[in-house]
Amino acid sequence: MQIQENELVLVFYNKEKSWLIKVSKGKSLHTHLGFFKHDDIIGKEYGSSIETNLGKKLFLLKPNTNDLALRVKRKTQVVYTKDSGYIIARTGLCSGMKVVEAGTGSGVLTIMLANIVKPLGHVYSYEIREDFYKLAGENINKAGLRDYVTLINKDVKEGFDFKDADLAVIDLADPWNVVRVSWEALKPSALFVAICPTVNQVEKLVSELSKGFVDIESVEILLREWEMRKDMSRPKVRMVAHTAYITFARKILI
Amino acid sequence: MQIQENELVLVFYNKEKSWLIKVSKGKSLHTHLGFFKHDDIIGKEYGSSIETNLGKKLFLLKPNTNDLALRVKRKTQVVYTKDSGYIIARTGLCSGMKVVEAGTGSGVLTIMLANIVKPLGHVYSYEIREDFYKLAGENINKAGLRDYVTLINKDVKEGFDFKDADLAVIDLADPWNVVRVSWEALKPSALFVAICPTVNQVEKLVSELSKGFVDIESVEILLREWEMRKDMSRPKVRMVAHTAYITFARKILI
Amino acid sequence: MQIQENELVLVFYNKEKSWLIKVSKGKSLHTHLGFFKHDDIIGKEYGSSIETNLGKKLFLLKPNTNDLALRVKRKTQVVYTKDSGYIIARTGLCSGMKVVEAGTGSGVLTIMLANIVKPLGHVYSYEIREDFYKLAGENINKAGLRDYVTLINKDVKEGFDFKDADLAVIDLADPWNVVRVSWEALKPSALFVAICPTVNQVEKLVSELSKGFVDIESVEILLREWEMRKDMSRPKVRMVAHTAYITFARKILI
Amino acid sequence: MQIQENELVLVFYNKEKSWLIKVSKGKSLHTHLGFFKHDDIIGKEYGSSIETNLGKKLFLLKPNTNDLALRVKRKTQVVYTKDSGYIIARTGLCSGMKVVEAGTGSGVLTIMLANIVKPLGHVYSYEIREDFYKLAGENINKAGLRDYVTLINKDVKEGFDFKDADLAVIDLADPWNVVRVSWEALKPSALFVAICPTVNQVEKLVSELSKGFVDIESVEILLREWEMRKDMSRPKVRMVAHTAYITFARKILI
Repeated sequence: MQIQENELVLVFYNKEKSWLIKVSKGKSLHTHLGFFKHDDIIGKEYGSSIETNLGKKLFLLKPNTNDLALRVKRKTQVVYTKDSGYIIARTGLCSGMKVVEAGTGSGVLTIMLANIVKPLGHVYSYEIREDFYKLAGENINKAGLRDYVTLINKDVKEGFDFKDADLAVIDLADPWNVVRVSWEALKPSALFVAICPTVNQVEKLVSELSKGFVDIESVEILLREWEMRKDMSRPKVRMVAHTAYITFARKILI
Repeated sequence: MQIQENELVLVFYNKEKSWLIKVSKGKSLHTHLGFFKHDDIIGKEYGSSIETNLGKKLFLLKPNTNDLALRVKRKTQVVYTKDSGYIIARTGLCSGMKVVEAGTGSGVLTIMLANIVKPLGHVYSYEIREDFYKLAGENINKAGLRDYVTLINKDVKEGFDFKDADLAVIDLADPWNVVRVSWEALKPSALFVAICPTVNQVEKLVSELSKGFVDIESVEILLREWEMRKDMSRPKVRMVAHTAYITFARKILI
Repeated sequence: MQIQENELVLVFYNKEKSWLIKVSKGKSLHTHLGFFKHDDIIGKEYGSSIETNLGKKLFLLKPNTNDLALRVKRKTQVVYTKDSGYIIARTGLCSGMKVVEAGTGSGVLTIMLANIVKPLGHVYSYEIREDFYKLAGENINKAGLRDYVTLINKDVKEGFDFKDADLAVIDLADPWNVVRVSWEALKPSALFVAICPTVNQVEKLVSELSKGFVDIESVEILLREWEMRKDMSRPKVRMVAHTAYITFARKILI
Repeated sequence: MQIQENELVLVFYNKEKSWLIKVSKGKSLHTHLGFFKHDDIIGKEYGSSIETNLGKKLFLLKPNTNDLALRVKRKTQVVYTKDSGYIIARTGLCSGMKVVEAGTGSGVLTIMLANIVKPLGHVYSYEIREDFYKLAGENINKAGLRDYVTLINKDVKEGFDFKDADLAVIDLADPWNVVRVSWEALKPSALFVAICPTVNQVEKLVSELSKGFVDIESVEILLREWEMRKDMSRPKVRMVAHTAYITFARKILI
C-alpha cells in the first residue's frame, strides 16, 4: 500500500512524538527532530520510514480510527479509548446498528461508535452548543465518517427524533433528564449507556433508571501502562486515575 | 420484536441470576425461583416479563454478542470484556477487516472480534488442540457467527496461511514464537496484539517485537464495579485484580 | 527465645492456614493437617518447627501486634492493616502521644494505635454499644495492651472527656456529628482522621470540617497481592477492591 | 502551645503551597503570596494564622514527623508514606524495637522507622555511598531523631554488625545479596522487608528468601486521592501509579 496525496499519515518517532499529517504536495513537516518534504513520502509504502534532514528516522504509518480520534481538535473533555472500548464490547455493538447519542462534544466517542456501526448502521448525535456541533462535524469529516453520522444541533431533552435504536449513549452533565427520552428511542431490551465524571451524577441517574430499565451496572475502567524491559519491568510512574463512571442499563417494557 | 421459537433469550432476574435459553416448544426453564414453559413466552415482546409458578418476575431480554460470549462453554481461561473492548477500540477494528488469531481457546475473543468485523470482514483463528478447536466451533455457531470465522486446527508456529491481515491477535503461552509469522501475515503498519497473564511473558515478547515492530505498548486494564445507591455509594468490596497484560505493536517494513 | 506456657504462638503452615494458640499444658492443636500437643512445643525456640502426627511441618512463630489484630473476635467491620498503616504514618503517630477514638467496634484499630503510642502514650476509645465495648476490651487484653487503652462505654456526641489529644480517630457512621467535639479534644494543629465506607459520608464530613480545620484530604488505599514466581510473576487474581475512604484534617484556632 | 525561636513551623496555605521554616529572629518568609517576618509569629499559638503583606492568610502548624520526612533534601528516590505506613503496621513495629536497615538513601524511611521505635528502640542504618550517608545524617538531625538512629557508612553485604534485630528493612537494588546477612541479624521469627521497584528484583529476592524464611508475601500499595465536594465528588484525575513492591518474610531457624 503506497502513500498517496491527500491521505492522512501517522508520522511516528516514539509514543510521545508522533504527528498526523495530510499529505500535500509542496508542504513539509517541521519538527524539533528536523524536517522532511511531503513530496518525498508520496509513493512510499506504509510501514516504511523516512529520514529528516537531521538524520532522524520517522516511520510512516497508516492511522486507524483510534489514532484519528485521539488527535482531533478538542474543546471538551473527551471519552478515553479504555472507556469507549468497554462501551463497545459490553453492549455488543456491531456493524448495522443504530445508535442515538446525546452530547456530541468534540465528537471523539461519536467517531469510535460510527467506526463500529458502519457501513450499514448509523449514529444520530445531539449537541445543544453550536460551537461543539460545528467542531464535531469537522472532526468526523476528517475521520472519514461523515456518511455514518447525523449531527443534530438541538436540545435532546425535547426527545430524540428517532425510534428503535439499538443503543443510547449519553454524555451530558444531567443524564437523569434524558432517561425518559432515551427509553422512548430504544428498542425493547436495548442498552442505555451514560458517562459521568462524578459519583453524585451516577447516583441520581441510577435512581431514575429504576423506571423502565433493568440490569443497571456502574463501573470504572482503569488503564495502567507498563515499562516492560529485560530485568527491569515495572508499571509507569504516573497514570490517569479517573476519567468517568460508565453506567449500563437495559430497557424493559412498562 | 416478538420472541420466536429457536431464538436465544436472556432470562434476567438480577445480575447474579440470569439464564440463556434457546426457546423450544414443550420445554420449561426450571430455577430455584420457580419455572415457566417456553411455550408461554413465544410471541411475547422482548423486554417484557413472565412470572414463574412461584410468582417471581423474570425479564425476557434479547442477548447481545457480549451476553453470548460470557455464557459459552469454557475449557480455558477466557478473555474478559474489559480486555477485548480495549483491543477492539485501540486497534480501530471495524467491519470489513481481516483478523488472524492464534490460540482460539474457547472462542470468546474470536466471537467478540467476529462481531465487529462482520459482515464483510473475517477472522481466521488457529488452535492446536483439537478439543478446544471443536468447542470453539460450537460456541461460535451458537453465537451465530460461523459465516465470519474460519477455525484452523493447526500449530500456527508453522505460519498463518493468510496475508494482508489488518490485525493479528495472539493468545498463546509463548507469543514470542509467533512474532515472525504474525509479521508475515500482517499488512504494513497493521497492529499486532498479544494477551499474556505474566510479566515474564510480556518481557520476552517485547524484546522479540523490537524486530519489525514499533509503537510497542503494554497495559493492564482494571474494572471496578460500584454500588450506586442514594446516600450509600461505594465500590463493590471485591474485584478481579488481574486477568492479563495486553501488548500492542505496529508492523514496519524491514 | 523459648516458647513458654501461656504465651501466644502463631502456628504457621502457609498464608491460608495458620493458627493463633495460647500455650496451655495438656492441650492439643487439632487441624486437618494433624495435631500436636502444646506440651511438646514448650521450651522450643521461636522460629523452629514441629511435626504433626501426620508428618506435616508447622512453624512456631512469635505473633506481632498486627498478627493479633487480624485474629481478634469480630462483630463489626474492622479496619484493614493497609488503612491503619497509612493513618499511623501520615499522622506521624509515635510513642507518648494521646489519641481519642470514637467507635471502638471490635477494637482492631485501637490495638494498632495503642501499639504505637505505648508505653508512654494512651488511647481513649469510645463505644456506645455495650456488646462491642465488652468485646473490644477482651480483644485488647488478649493483645496485651490493656495498660495503654481506656475504653469508655458512652455516646461520644456528648463530647470527649479529654483535652489536648494529639490525634482524633473517628470510625462512626455519622462522623460529621463529632467534628465539633473532636475539635475541642484536639491540640491546636493536631490531626483529625475519619474512616468512612461511602462517598456520601465523606462528602458530608468534609463540608463540616471546613469549620475549624485545614489541610483536608480524602484518600483510598488499595493493596494488591502478587504471586512472584520464577518466570511466572503476576498479580493475584482477586483482591479487596474497597474498604473505606480515609479523611485527614488539621485543627486550626477559630 | 506557642511558637518559639528555632522551632520548625509548617506554614500552610493549601496542599500545593506550604513551607517548612525554622523560626529565626530577623528572617522573613518570602512567597509569591507575599511575605511575613519570623519575629511576628514568635509567641503565636500553633494553629493560628498570620497575614502576609499582600493580605494572604497563612496557617502556622506544628509539623509532625511525616511532614518533616516529606520535606527533606533528596538525592534518591524516597519511600512514600503509603509504603512506610504499610511496613510499620504490617510488621507490628513499636517503641523499643531494634531495626537494621540497608540503603539509608536520603533517610526518609529511616526517619519514619525511628519515629516509631523511639525512645527506647533504635535504627541501625547502612549506606555505602558517602554522599547519601551525609545527607541522611543531616535530614535525620533536622527531624530531631539523631538519638535514635546510628548511621553506618559501609557495605552491608559484609554483614550487619548487630544481632537480635526485630526487623530488617532493605532498600537496595540487589536485596537478594543481603538475605543471608539479614537472616543473621534477625531474631528468630522476626520480619524481613524489602522495597523493590521492579518485578524482576522481587522474583529474584523471593527465590532467595525460600532459604531461611516463611510467610513470604509481595504486595503493592496504591493511593488514590479524591476531590470530595458537595454534588461533585470524584477521584483526582492523576495519581502515582507505581512506587515499589514491598516483600515481607519471617525468619525461621534452619
